[in-house]
Amino acid sequence: MFDVTTLTADQYDAVYNVLSLGFASMFATTIFLYISQGRVLPKYRQAIVISGTVTLIAMYHYWRIFESFVAAKGGAEFNEAYRYVDWLLTVPLLLLETVAVLALPASERKSLTSRLVPASALMIILGYPGEMAMENGAKMLWGALSTIPFLYILYVLFVELTRSLERQPGEVSATIGRLRLLLIATWGVYPLSYLMPVLGIDGSDAFVGRQIGYTVADVLAKCLFGLTIYKVAKLKSAADDSAYAASENV
Amino acid sequence: MFDVTTLTADQYDAVYNVLSLGFASMFATTIFLYISQGRVLPKYRQAIVISGTVTLIAMYHYWRIFESFVAAKGGAEFNEAYRYVDWLLTVPLLLLETVAVLALPASERKSLTSRLVPASALMIILGYPGEMAMENGAKMLWGALSTIPFLYILYVLFVELTRSLERQPGEVSATIGRLRLLLIATWGVYPLSYLMPVLGIDGSDAFVGRQIGYTVADVLAKCLFGLTIYKVAKLKSAADDSAYAASENV
Repeated sequence: MFDVTTLTADQYDAVYNVLSLGFASMFATTIFLYISQGRVLPKYRQAIVISGTVTLIAMYHYWRIFESFVAAKGGAEFNEAYRYVDWLLTVPLLLLETVAVLALPASERKSLTSRLVPASALMIILGYPGEMAMENGAKMLWGALSTIPFLYILYVLFVELTRSLERQPGEVSATIGRLRLLLIATWGVYPLSYLMPVLGIDGSDAFVGRQIGYTVADVLAKCLFGLTIYKVAKLKSAADDSAYAASENV
Repeated sequence: MFDVTTLTADQYDAVYNVLSLGFASMFATTIFLYISQGRVLPKYRQAIVISGTVTLIAMYHYWRIFESFVAAKGGAEFNEAYRYVDWLLTVPLLLLETVAVLALPASERKSLTSRLVPASALMIILGYPGEMAMENGAKMLWGALSTIPFLYILYVLFVELTRSLERQPGEVSATIGRLRLLLIATWGVYPLSYLMPVLGIDGSDAFVGRQIGYTVADVLAKCLFGLTIYKVAKLKSAADDSAYAASENV
C-alpha cells in the first residue's frame, strides 16, 4: 500500500485539489441532470436519470476518497478500493445509459444490456487484483484478463450497435458516433494510469499520476459523457417532435 | 459480542468496503426511485415511493453500521442491532410494496397486507434473540421460531397470490413471478449468514462472512427488488394505457 506521508507538499496539494475537482464535477453534473431530465421527451428520461445516478455514486465515492486521502496524510491507510467499488456500480450503468438513450425496441435493448452489463462488471472485477498487486507480472496478467471483456464490449458497441445507428436521423447518428468515440477515448486513460508502474513510473510519481489520471478519466467518462447523453436526448426529442424542437430551440 | 480489533487488515478492508458499497447502493437507488416515481401511472406510484422509503431507511442504517464498524476498530462495541432495527422497519414495507404494485381491489389488498405485515415483523423479532445468542442451541431455537412466520409468508405469496397473478397480463405476470422468486432467493441469504456459527464457521471468518452476506442480501432484496418493482410498474402502466407505452417506449 502506498504511504501518502512520503508525498512532497506539492504532490499532496496536486492530488488534494484534483480530488476536490472530481467531487465538484460529479456534484454539479448530478444536479444539472436531475433538474434537466424533464426537458427531453419521456422515452429519453431514463437515460438522463441513469446518467445522474452514475455521477451521484461517483460524487459519494469522491467524498470518501478525499476524506481517506486527508486521513492518510495523518498516517491512516489510503483506501484505493473505493475507486473499484465505484466502477463496479457505475461502469455497467454507463453502458445502460448509452443503450437507453437510443430508445431501441425492447428486444434489441435487452439483448445489448444482457451482454454489456455482465461484461463490464467482469472487466472491473478482473482489474482489481492487478491494481492491488505489487509485482508487474501479476499486474500484466490481470490487466490482460480484464482486457478480454473490454474487447467484447468494443465489439458489441462498434459492430452490433452500428446496425441500429443506421436507423437514426443524420445529426443524431453523428452525435451517437461521437458519444461512442468519447467512451472509448476516456476509457483509454484508465489502463494508462493502471499500467504506470509497468511503464517504469513508480513511487510517488506513479501514485500522483494515477490519482490525477483516474480523476480526469472519471470526469470525462461520467460528467462529459452524461452531458453528451443529454445532448443526444435533446437532438432525438427534436427529431421525433417538431413542436419540441421549436419550443426548446434545438 | 465480536471484537472487531481481532480482524486482519484484509478482513477489516473487506467489511469496510462492502459496507460502503451497501451505503452507495441504497443512496443511489433511493434517489433514482424518488425521481422516477412520477413516470408510472398514479396507481403504481405508491409502490415506487415505498420502495424508495425502504432504501432510504437502509441508507441511514448503513451509514450508522459503517460508522459503528470504524469506531469498533478503535475498541468501541460494534452494534449488530442496527440491522434488526432496519429489517423491522423495511421488511414489512418490502411486502407492502409488493402488494401495492399489483394494484389489486382494496379488499384483496387489505386482506394480504393485514397478514403479511404482522408475520414479517414477527419473523424479525423472533430472529433477534438468536442473532445475539452465543450458543448454537439458542440460535437454532430462535431461528426455528422465526421460520414459522416466514413459512406463512411463503404460503401467502405462493398459494394465495397465485390466484391474482392469473388475472395479470402475460409479460407482467412473468415479471411478478420473477419478483417473487427474487424475494425468496435473496431472503434465503439471510438464514445462511445467520446460521454461519451453527454451520461450523466461527470467529473472524463468521463475522466477515455474515457482514458480507447480509450486505449483499440487502442490496439484492432492497435495491434490485425496488428496481424490479419499478419495472413491473412500467410494464403494468404500459399494459393499462397504450399512449403511455408509446411515449415511454416500454
